[in-house]
Amino acid sequence: MTVQVGVLGATGAVGQRLIQLLEPHPDFEIAALTASDSSAGHAYRDVAKWRVDTPIPAEIAEMTVHATTPEAIPDDVDLLFSSLPSSVGAKVEPPFCEAGYVVSSNSSNSRMAEDVPLVIPEVNAEHLDLLEVQRDERGWDGALVKNPNCSTITFVPTLAALAAAGFTLEEVHVATLQAVSGAGYDGVSSMEIIDNAIPHIGSEEEKLETESRKLLGTFDGAELTHDGVEVAASCNRIPTLDGHLENVWVEAEEELTPADAADAMAEFPALDLPSSPDPLIHVFEDPSRPQPRLDRNLGDGMAIAAGGIRESTFGLQYNCLAHNTIRGAAGASVLNGELLLENGYL
Amino acid sequence: MTVQVGVLGATGAVGQRLIQLLEPHPDFEIAALTASDSSAGHAYRDVAKWRVDTPIPAEIAEMTVHATTPEAIPDDVDLLFSSLPSSVGAKVEPPFCEAGYVVSSNSSNSRMAEDVPLVIPEVNAEHLDLLEVQRDERGWDGALVKNPNCSTITFVPTLAALAAAGFTLEEVHVATLQAVSGAGYDGVSSMEIIDNAIPHIGSEEEKLETESRKLLGTFDGAELTHDGVEVAASCNRIPTLDGHLENVWVEAEEELTPADAADAMAEFPALDLPSSPDPLIHVFEDPSRPQPRLDRNLGDGMAIAAGGIRESTFGLQYNCLAHNTIRGAAGASVLNGELLLENGYL
Amino acid sequence: MTVQVGVLGATGAVGQRLIQLLEPHPDFEIAALTASDSSAGHAYRDVAKWRVDTPIPAEIAEMTVHATTPEAIPDDVDLLFSSLPSSVGAKVEPPFCEAGYVVSSNSSNSRMAEDVPLVIPEVNAEHLDLLEVQRDERGWDGALVKNPNCSTITFVPTLAALAAAGFTLEEVHVATLQAVSGAGYDGVSSMEIIDNAIPHIGSEEEKLETESRKLLGTFDGAELTHDGVEVAASCNRIPTLDGHLENVWVEAEEELTPADAADAMAEFPALDLPSSPDPLIHVFEDPSRPQPRLDRNLGDGMAIAAGGIRESTFGLQYNCLAHNTIRGAAGASVLNGELLLENGYL
Amino acid sequence: MTVQVGVLGATGAVGQRLIQLLEPHPDFEIAALTASDSSAGHAYRDVAKWRVDTPIPAEIAEMTVHATTPEAIPDDVDLLFSSLPSSVGAKVEPPFCEAGYVVSSNSSNSRMAEDVPLVIPEVNAEHLDLLEVQRDERGWDGALVKNPNCSTITFVPTLAALAAAGFTLEEVHVATLQAVSGAGYDGVSSMEIIDNAIPHIGSEEEKLETESRKLLGTFDGAELTHDGVEVAASCNRIPTLDGHLENVWVEAEEELTPADAADAMAEFPALDLPSSPDPLIHVFEDPSRPQPRLDRNLGDGMAIAAGGIRESTFGLQYNCLAHNTIRGAAGASVLNGELLLENGYL
Repeated sequence: MTVQVGVLGATGAVGQRLIQLLEPHPDFEIAALTASDSSAGHAYRDVAKWRVDTPIPAEIAEMTVHATTPEAIPDDVDLLFSSLPSSVGAKVEPPFCEAGYVVSSNSSNSRMAEDVPLVIPEVNAEHLDLLEVQRDERGWDGALVKNPNCSTITFVPTLAALAAAGFTLEEVHVATLQAVSGAGYDGVSSMEIIDNAIPHIGSEEEKLETESRKLLGTFDGAELTHDGVEVAASCNRIPTLDGHLENVWVEAEEELTPADAADAMAEFPALDLPSSPDPLIHVFEDPSRPQPRLDRNLGDGMAIAAGGIRESTFGLQYNCLAHNTIRGAAGASVLNGELLLENGYL
Repeated sequence: MTVQVGVLGATGAVGQRLIQLLEPHPDFEIAALTASDSSAGHAYRDVAKWRVDTPIPAEIAEMTVHATTPEAIPDDVDLLFSSLPSSVGAKVEPPFCEAGYVVSSNSSNSRMAEDVPLVIPEVNAEHLDLLEVQRDERGWDGALVKNPNCSTITFVPTLAALAAAGFTLEEVHVATLQAVSGAGYDGVSSMEIIDNAIPHIGSEEEKLETESRKLLGTFDGAELTHDGVEVAASCNRIPTLDGHLENVWVEAEEELTPADAADAMAEFPALDLPSSPDPLIHVFEDPSRPQPRLDRNLGDGMAIAAGGIRESTFGLQYNCLAHNTIRGAAGASVLNGELLLENGYL
Repeated sequence: MTVQVGVLGATGAVGQRLIQLLEPHPDFEIAALTASDSSAGHAYRDVAKWRVDTPIPAEIAEMTVHATTPEAIPDDVDLLFSSLPSSVGAKVEPPFCEAGYVVSSNSSNSRMAEDVPLVIPEVNAEHLDLLEVQRDERGWDGALVKNPNCSTITFVPTLAALAAAGFTLEEVHVATLQAVSGAGYDGVSSMEIIDNAIPHIGSEEEKLETESRKLLGTFDGAELTHDGVEVAASCNRIPTLDGHLENVWVEAEEELTPADAADAMAEFPALDLPSSPDPLIHVFEDPSRPQPRLDRNLGDGMAIAAGGIRESTFGLQYNCLAHNTIRGAAGASVLNGELLLENGYL
Repeated sequence: MTVQVGVLGATGAVGQRLIQLLEPHPDFEIAALTASDSSAGHAYRDVAKWRVDTPIPAEIAEMTVHATTPEAIPDDVDLLFSSLPSSVGAKVEPPFCEAGYVVSSNSSNSRMAEDVPLVIPEVNAEHLDLLEVQRDERGWDGALVKNPNCSTITFVPTLAALAAAGFTLEEVHVATLQAVSGAGYDGVSSMEIIDNAIPHIGSEEEKLETESRKLLGTFDGAELTHDGVEVAASCNRIPTLDGHLENVWVEAEEELTPADAADAMAEFPALDLPSSPDPLIHVFEDPSRPQPRLDRNLGDGMAIAAGGIRESTFGLQYNCLAHNTIRGAAGASVLNGELLLENGYL
């Protein structure tokens, strides 16, 4: 029983990754692609500047791109993956949900809304049930689920592993070294970043600080309480193509040794979903790992890599990494789609 | 009254920068160059693989390179700049000092020795008087002065500015994004770093954590007390050529606003030495600055750049940057040489 | 007697370089800046995203930007430097010339027009007199002079040096390795070029093949005859910031040895103009030079560097390099302005 | 019937690629690894600094590394893959051949020897019979087969395709843009190549010019006659990790149109060997392709990519690309091993 799916914003960087991941997917079949009005009516091949490192799938290349409106979507489509710019997502996602579509979205709009589940399946699958609240409140037949920002996804699973092992996290500092693909194909010009680093990514720090607390929070069936951990983030863009690397300092209420942390991360369970890698967190002993180019493709780009776990002047210190356009964006949405399917929302 | 100076380890990356800085210097004249035994006896042009972006000075090119021993140095040389590998420096610097030479060294050996001044002139010029203790204890006619590690030099002036403005610093987190030149010409291979970042630089974090406390410490004329600030560092190598960028979080005993910090940094005084830039700390309002490629050459590579000064979840947060082979290495040694001259040690 | 000048298209990459070069210029004073209508009326500081590696000159920063129309230019301005997109240049440059302005333009429009001098002063200063023909034909009080494409400027001086030494050039092959700045600030995205090269730059090859023949041609006072050398070009974009490197093969009618070529290039004369470097062509013996990062700033970015001059399977082979936004664009226009001044056109 | 194979020089860059390719190979099983004397006796995991982007195979990691001498190789090994430095290869390969081993070597020594087949299976498989001559002359039980230099392998298949389609090639110019991995892990330092290009690779041009003529030559059963095509090469190192891109100009005796060339390349046959991709040459219509990052992995890194096929001022012009450490080195040796197996030499 294959689910017919659509991709909203299919020509962009994340849209292309979505197609790359969905085309061979065991449960999903791409039945609709949308883009801006100027692309609607054209063959995907002609409007997408395909830049993923595997060839454009032949059938997809010939598909006609639709406008991004509910009317344009074929009737048999049940699930939509959205990678729209957030300003567009804010406008068009609600009408799709109202029209009955389930939307698994990577766009940043509505991520912090009280009745919108923000989900990393291995971390907080139970938050999905917030959809009941959402449907009650909004009167939607469809549903809207979000995955977090790529830089949030990179470090939150490591925090969740520590929490799952019984540690009460109090203070977290995180510095990010983010790849250029996180800004989209044209987001960072070559003259800005060759032989350079940029210590500022608009609104990014706030996302790490707030989304992490929501993800680690508790849903009691009616309301979601954000976690008490306090996070301070500092975000940098560096000249890497893919893979966000993060330096993390953690202070817990309890004594937390590097060995404790390594065990907690290595044992943090994966899920039995097609895109959930096992192990979820790959723990390196070599202190010089993980590195973006060497480790971003672990678990087909869906694993979290951690290493350099060591005592710090304050608490514990380590590094982690994830592929920002797979685990951090397109793969995150696909995984949420798999969770929606498993939990009967499709 | 020009001082005749020598450069120990003149063929390396820092050695070449030393020559670039010393050749036009108003008070110093290069009278001796040393390198490994295999280079001794050859013209500098033939043994140095000159890679600095200004041409090799014509007179220097023709100078004969000496072995790195006191006997090989001409008599009229008073001051030696040392940029030797630390294992070599540990062996050969003491004999030079014993033979009466004043050595301004960038090498990491002995930086934390109790009777060796570790100096950034604008930060702790008064530590230079530790040389009296050193001479007493070691019976040297010469003297050994160190400058700190390049990544230490980048952020300590900003801490010193806050301290000078009356803030008592308690906890500091610092994440570094360090340029490849910090590892020397052959220190980082291209295959290691293109499209990559390496979250580990051997012993580097300890240097930031310990050298900073010594630099900010108090010398009472007899003994040096290290400062109480606690520092936790996380060090990364990224694909930039020059310029170390650092993300800093500071928690002070007192309330410390971004405006306080910006004022403290902007007003922190330069010194009246040829290589001390004015202002010492260039404070940017644009939150995306400083950036390595755009800002490393401020003050001829001797300025510290700071920006993104903002409230943090914990205390204050900002970014800073310095040119690692000028302010962070060769220029640091030259500046210490200027301080030695001014204070009558030559 | 300082000439008042204006910059058309002052906010772009070449426009910023023009300002960097003109601000300290001995003979020119910036009196007007123009940009698109949306920037007109604003302070330059607010509409230019300044990315040159020297600070924006304080007076320039405060200047009000004008629309790019003759009416907007102050009366005392005599000379305009144009770095407009070619489609814009094609529309607006003629009205400026008709209104009496002398325009030294880097834009590619009209470069091959029969009555428009295409000039590298050290190569074909005598072509400037084509302006008499131009004024006759077009009835302009002003005048329009062009400099060639950045990749053309890099290799033509070396061909001119060989021709000046008496060699009759027949066949030239040239492969270019061009820096990203040649495409403007946003011309090449980081995702396109990190760890990559692009063997195609639209219309670039034709420019090298045709502009070179015009530059090397003969002006008899009435008509310009293009040179008979045949050129085949292959153009590539690579991940360098500035400096176009080119591999050249030359076959001449006469025997042409590497020594002949090296002498011809080293002795090719500079001009007595403020921006013409001496020597014009810097000839390296080291076969691994010139290299973009090490050699693009020779002669303040206005020199041509050549090296690796060697026998080839066919004729002669060598490499050459020039700074593409200085010698290849902004500096080329400024140098043409200096030639116009010297020859009494201002 | 799996053939037991050994890897000589297993710790280097090409050695690691050999292991990556051989480990899942259908016909070969790794039974021996050798390296320098200092590595002998240690587990492979401990002496190889594994940097390939797939994990080190678990069984290989635990294998004990041998010295590079015939005595150290287990008896049941029949085929050796050699990726030794050429100076070492020149010394140790002959003794292995004398001891009865068949050696498929990527090292540059002996490539141009009259009785050593230099083979790209799809281009000149019939040259393999030169081994009969070799065994007669040298009295070896074993045999020595070479694959060409990585930059030679990239463009020769395109020339072979044109020759196979009936065109008589006369003059070829080729400019290379070569990746850093071609120089080995430590061959190019990051300071040499970030924001830079180097127009010189020692002895490389000669390899393209001479190896190409041998590969395209004719073996009559007794003697190998080199082809008459004349090749002029210009070699550059650029900041790419993998994938050599080449600009080629070809002049043929007959009229040769872009369409002829595209057809000839697209139809040039692959072989029925495990590592020979089908198609062998992937022809792009998009003139901006092939590009190293996007196209180096075509055919699992064993395909040749060609594009930008166009008329030139002289003859024809196009670009081609191959993965330099797979098709250009490790994969080339493996493919030769497969040819040796098919032709009964094992």
